[in-house]
Amino acid sequence: MKRILLTGAAGNLGKALRKQLAGWADELRLSDIVTIDDLQEGESFVNCDISDLQAVIELVKDCDGIIHAGGQSIEGTWDNILDRNIKGTYNIYEAARQQGVKRVFFTSSNHLVGFHERETLLDNDSPMRPDSLYGVSKGFGEVLARYYYDKFGIESTLARIGSCFPEIPNRRMLSTWLSERDLADLIKTTFDADRLGCTMVYAVSNNKAVWCDNRHASFIGWQPQDSSEPFADQPHLIEEGKRNDPNDPAIRYQGGAFVTAGHFDDEQE
Amino acid sequence: MKRILLTGAAGNLGKALRKQLAGWADELRLSDIVTIDDLQEGESFVNCDISDLQAVIELVKDCDGIIHAGGQSIEGTWDNILDRNIKGTYNIYEAARQQGVKRVFFTSSNHLVGFHERETLLDNDSPMRPDSLYGVSKGFGEVLARYYYDKFGIESTLARIGSCFPEIPNRRMLSTWLSERDLADLIKTTFDADRLGCTMVYAVSNNKAVWCDNRHASFIGWQPQDSSEPFADQPHLIEEGKRNDPNDPAIRYQGGAFVTAGHFDDEQE
Amino acid sequence: MKRILLTGAAGNLGKALRKQLAGWADELRLSDIVTIDDLQEGESFVNCDISDLQAVIELVKDCDGIIHAGGQSIEGTWDNILDRNIKGTYNIYEAARQQGVKRVFFTSSNHLVGFHERETLLDNDSPMRPDSLYGVSKGFGEVLARYYYDKFGIESTLARIGSCFPEIPNRRMLSTWLSERDLADLIKTTFDADRLGCTMVYAVSNNKAVWCDNRHASFIGWQPQDSSEPFADQPHLIEEGKRNDPNDPAIRYQGGAFVTAGHFDDEQE
Amino acid sequence: MKRILLTGAAGNLGKALRKQLAGWADELRLSDIVTIDDLQEGESFVNCDISDLQAVIELVKDCDGIIHAGGQSIEGTWDNILDRNIKGTYNIYEAARQQGVKRVFFTSSNHLVGFHERETLLDNDSPMRPDSLYGVSKGFGEVLARYYYDKFGIESTLARIGSCFPEIPNRRMLSTWLSERDLADLIKTTFDADRLGCTMVYAVSNNKAVWCDNRHASFIGWQPQDSSEPFADQPHLIEEGKRNDPNDPAIRYQGGAFVTAGHFDDEQE
Amino acid sequence: MKRILLTGAAGNLGKALRKQLAGWADELRLSDIVTIDDLQEGESFVNCDISDLQAVIELVKDCDGIIHAGGQSIEGTWDNILDRNIKGTYNIYEAARQQGVKRVFFTSSNHLVGFHERETLLDNDSPMRPDSLYGVSKGFGEVLARYYYDKFGIESTLARIGSCFPEIPNRRMLSTWLSERDLADLIKTTFDADRLGCTMVYAVSNNKAVWCDNRHASFIGWQPQDSSEPFADQPHLIEEGKRNDPNDPAIRYQGGAFVTAGHFDDEQE
Amino acid sequence: MKRILLTGAAGNLGKALRKQLAGWADELRLSDIVTIDDLQEGESFVNCDISDLQAVIELVKDCDGIIHAGGQSIEGTWDNILDRNIKGTYNIYEAARQQGVKRVFFTSSNHLVGFHERETLLDNDSPMRPDSLYGVSKGFGEVLARYYYDKFGIESTLARIGSCFPEIPNRRMLSTWLSERDLADLIKTTFDADRLGCTMVYAVSNNKAVWCDNRHASFIGWQPQDSSEPFADQPHLIEEGKRNDPNDPAIRYQGGAFVTAGHFDDEQE
Repeated sequence: MKRILLTGAAGNLGKALRKQLAGWADELRLSDIVTIDDLQEGESFVNCDISDLQAVIELVKDCDGIIHAGGQSIEGTWDNILDRNIKGTYNIYEAARQQGVKRVFFTSSNHLVGFHERETLLDNDSPMRPDSLYGVSKGFGEVLARYYYDKFGIESTLARIGSCFPEIPNRRMLSTWLSERDLADLIKTTFDADRLGCTMVYAVSNNKAVWCDNRHASFIGWQPQDSSEPFADQPHLIEEGKRNDPNDPAIRYQGGAFVTAGHFDDEQE
Repeated sequence: MKRILLTGAAGNLGKALRKQLAGWADELRLSDIVTIDDLQEGESFVNCDISDLQAVIELVKDCDGIIHAGGQSIEGTWDNILDRNIKGTYNIYEAARQQGVKRVFFTSSNHLVGFHERETLLDNDSPMRPDSLYGVSKGFGEVLARYYYDKFGIESTLARIGSCFPEIPNRRMLSTWLSERDLADLIKTTFDADRLGCTMVYAVSNNKAVWCDNRHASFIGWQPQDSSEPFADQPHLIEEGKRNDPNDPAIRYQGGAFVTAGHFDDEQE
Repeated sequence: MKRILLTGAAGNLGKALRKQLAGWADELRLSDIVTIDDLQEGESFVNCDISDLQAVIELVKDCDGIIHAGGQSIEGTWDNILDRNIKGTYNIYEAARQQGVKRVFFTSSNHLVGFHERETLLDNDSPMRPDSLYGVSKGFGEVLARYYYDKFGIESTLARIGSCFPEIPNRRMLSTWLSERDLADLIKTTFDADRLGCTMVYAVSNNKAVWCDNRHASFIGWQPQDSSEPFADQPHLIEEGKRNDPNDPAIRYQGGAFVTAGHFDDEQE
Repeated sequence: MKRILLTGAAGNLGKALRKQLAGWADELRLSDIVTIDDLQEGESFVNCDISDLQAVIELVKDCDGIIHAGGQSIEGTWDNILDRNIKGTYNIYEAARQQGVKRVFFTSSNHLVGFHERETLLDNDSPMRPDSLYGVSKGFGEVLARYYYDKFGIESTLARIGSCFPEIPNRRMLSTWLSERDLADLIKTTFDADRLGCTMVYAVSNNKAVWCDNRHASFIGWQPQDSSEPFADQPHLIEEGKRNDPNDPAIRYQGGAFVTAGHFDDEQE
Repeated sequence: MKRILLTGAAGNLGKALRKQLAGWADELRLSDIVTIDDLQEGESFVNCDISDLQAVIELVKDCDGIIHAGGQSIEGTWDNILDRNIKGTYNIYEAARQQGVKRVFFTSSNHLVGFHERETLLDNDSPMRPDSLYGVSKGFGEVLARYYYDKFGIESTLARIGSCFPEIPNRRMLSTWLSERDLADLIKTTFDADRLGCTMVYAVSNNKAVWCDNRHASFIGWQPQDSSEPFADQPHLIEEGKRNDPNDPAIRYQGGAFVTAGHFDDEQE
Repeated sequence: MKRILLTGAAGNLGKALRKQLAGWADELRLSDIVTIDDLQEGESFVNCDISDLQAVIELVKDCDGIIHAGGQSIEGTWDNILDRNIKGTYNIYEAARQQGVKRVFFTSSNHLVGFHERETLLDNDSPMRPDSLYGVSKGFGEVLARYYYDKFGIESTLARIGSCFPEIPNRRMLSTWLSERDLADLIKTTFDADRLGCTMVYAVSNNKAVWCDNRHASFIGWQPQDSSEPFADQPHLIEEGKRNDPNDPAIRYQGGAFVTAGHFDDEQE
């Protein structure tokens, strides 16, 4: 592994990845719109607004791979989604094409499939059913990645990340939880695999009650090690269990509270 | 967990469940047509003939859930099947509707799919192919449960129980065996899940040679812990292995000896 | 074709079939609980309550095939459903077994799958999702027929009849309509086929907007000739079209008004 | 049918639709960025740039349905695709939501699935494999439409239009051709159906050699009447047939020449 | 169309094809082990034993395509099957490779799938279940064709021919019948298609009761025009219908009498 | 277990199996064209050319089962493939039929499916796509085994062996590796199972990155214990990883270098 770009490096996911990936690449090039000034050995930093194509073309130069964790990571205004996730993701792939970068780790989201019921076991054939404009933008990103693969040979992992947090605030996350370690392993697998294709992976840990099946991706060899089970006995989760109503849409659908939220722009007014 | 009804509590399955579920519910309300007089702490008893709708309506009152293990559990005369399994199961669901009980654990059976060959890996799409009127009555129960779910919102686990016995008398059961502990875990999972839907589960332990795939039900989080493998070296099983003929219908089909039995009423004459 | 029994011969379907099948069998043995006194050439009549097993055993004697159109054909009280459809259908198959009748045409119903949405194209793998106790009883009948096929070799057509009426009172029936001629052709095909197995068929005509796919049954060679399209321009249907709401459950689900009806017994009180 | 909006009314598709739909709606409200001055009876015109949300909100006011044929209809620069197809389509759906319009006909494209080989029979489960940024933008539109359906109940036809031209310039179009009449019928079906859901349709005529299967959409009742077959004997098509190489990517993949084109922006420099 | 080789030209199928294809190719090069001396305009003849590789290499020289109808066309001794069908088919493909012939029409057979029951609708995913060594040899041919396609780019139609006869001697052939005209159309389609791949087709006419589904091959555009239906009322077929037993293996399985025949070599002794 | 024949006993696989199976059978009858003179207790030896049917009929006499590991185990000339694998395998099954041997372990190969891409998860429905004439011959063997099962009741395991070697020379084998112990367990399972049918198994160990799914065969109860993972850190594999190109056909396709080799006979000249 040589020079890998990490976008969104100042965000929560970015911070977790810097720790997990320490020492893994020859150079981990961090980028964010916010300055990072605690660089560790093996890290460099480039300030960059990913909605600026020319800046992104400069940013990816000489990289051997890209971990694209930048952009809006929850629901936002349409303008934010458009600028940061739609233009931002286009810029990353187009810059990769122009600069000859051949492999991308794209942080997609479970919110791209949030309107499936919990009874539906998701696999590689499940239709996209986003629960938010944020989810829609991840659908755009996945379709775009497929285009850059089929036409220009850029390989991608499309990682539909569940919930990558150090703690588990609600029972839904017992199913969607992804440990930072398992995420880092998926990234390493992405760049180690002899062949990657353009492969979607449900990025959740080896939890007990799961809503997805990654068999189609077993050829890359990612096997999550962690489980949410040790968290399951926490009092706030037990208490929540007593209140939960199976017909509450936030329980019925996989996207949780995202499916019950209205249009974000309405709420801004 | 609060007040749970267990029907068929005096039967073999009922007895095993009383032991396994001790201390789990605030009240485990036992019922049977036979009197139970060794009540343990947390248990109550109601004598009830489940083929009597009014009695069942009384029985389920104030319950938070029902484990329906009552009725005929092997092949019987048509009159028995009709009274105990068809009318009995209707009465349970109709009483649940009238009394507002929202969740049922229904003991279905592998004999609902006994005419599939061993080579057929059963899953959620496998057609019903009963090997007995007993199996037919379980098909009725599953279809009825689906109706009460779709129209009245009563959730169910439809547990196609393999062979829940302390010992393994024949080689077929190495594949169909279900430990009492794994059964109890499935029941607990049923009433703990935030959402259950109307979910069929092949209720067998984590055996080595299996005929079914429960992936579609992984969202509820049941993972059997036990295996029949430690029993496999018993002399009577090894001896049987030397005699078995792959073309014997009782070996060819999953239902075992049930597929070779004639109509029960003939044999009664 | 020799001697064929037609149960429910005094009902609407029975009357239509007598006309359509005139001259087809050597003897068409009619039966009903109601007396029929306008016998035509080639017809005979036996008064019979199909909930009486011994009477049914007598009824089917010397028959070469059975068209079982008797019983409750819409939602009814549980007692009616139990007596006429569950016991009645058991009696027909058990009598066929005892008397050596090898082929049965069973009138199942679209109400066995009425809780599927219109967007769902039904085929041979669609799960049973009844919209009524009537629909549940048809599920019992189909599972029973499968049992008598797998164990005793009695072949059946399981005809999930849509709406077999001379007129089309509402827009839903543009999709579910079955002409009397197409129904009669399906019956003739049933008894003409060299091999029938136990085959489910969605019995609807060759309508324009269809909700089901019969490819799995193409081996028997039934090809409906009629279509509801000529009825589509009737004023009451055009008027209804202006009022219909896609989110009305009676429009959303295939079963129509059956899915919005409550429990029949409630309404009798 | 009452007031229907047609966007892109000055384009080729728009012109064809005005002819085909003449007299169908009470009012056909035309819109385009280009002025239309040959209004026919029943038509009105609103000049509108669909990349301007506020203008689109005004545009859709009081409409009962929208035929969205506006935007970029072939490959273009990324800026064009972004403005006209991504922002444009968002604006249409968001305006529909704000103004209470409940049904949209969205002109998607076969170029959303252009990287499938001809041997692949496309159906409702086929993954999106766009052959152009234009195709990617149609993927965005379909995912967005699904979001507005699942969350806000706006129904859509997602019509993956093949090649809707009066003449057939090349052999590929023998398979992808859609007559103007069949397109108009699909639009009428869209707004006549009692329930539409969010339904993708491969919009090609009843051609002889087809690459797609619309069975999943048979519930809406669209049956194309025309065929490209009468065009097949034209000399230029016969001549082309002698030259075609099965390994030419433009022959191998369904998208034709789109799959061999480079990035459009490169070519603009 | 230019120079096309027809092997097995002196056999029944070969004779029928010579008539049907008259005038279609610039040169139809006939070959057989038996001399043909009634050459028509546009025909040439080469005497050739297809089990001789060097002879076959000479035979295919300068051909633009091959219709391989030579070899054993019914069950035979293993030595015959080996020489004529296994070595013969290898020789055809290997000669095509050495001489640069890019397209082959291979006469496979329904006897490659003869052990499927009639209830099984065959499609592109149906496993090979031959009913004879003859059927096994056709499986060898199909697998070999796939190899020569994947590695050397030789395209093939793998035509699983049903029963191509001028008359219909038994009821089974009402389902498997292929008219000579429909066969010729399939051959013409094979050599006219812009792209063929390596495509299996169930070669039966548009009969009423069919056991197979060719949807996967619709991209090549073959639509059979004829039907066995006009033959159905012949007295010998009606008589046979009265005798047929659904449990007779020759009725139960698609291969008919082939499934009940023993090993051919036994019968030769 | 009684008398089991092992063909190809002098080859590498044969040698490994002799060690692994020591003491398992009452008699392990070894055969090869090469003499074996280090017989161990429980072993016997018969010199035999498997391309000679009469010799093979003698060879299998009184055996209770056959492990057929003889023949060509890599690509070879067509004459070798024909003699040793096609005639050889026919002779084994035909001799088994004549001598009443009811169960065969057939060493098929991953090279029967070598032209699938790594992204394709192979299962029981995957079409045969051989990468060599060797692979084609294994396809012949599997189809032949199915014939002898359907018609004559001889059960088989069709073991598509990956790479059974003590060392792992290249990264591809991290996915295809099969330990000798796991192979021996599969053989024991084959002859211990109460019913085997004609069951294909992908014979690879429990490796991390796998290309196949054996769920359909779980009824026989084989669970590989070993993994290639301990080999993964060897320097030559790490070095290779730095060089590998995902678009190299030997990386893209599962068959590895076999897919890039030309016709073997060309290379012999």
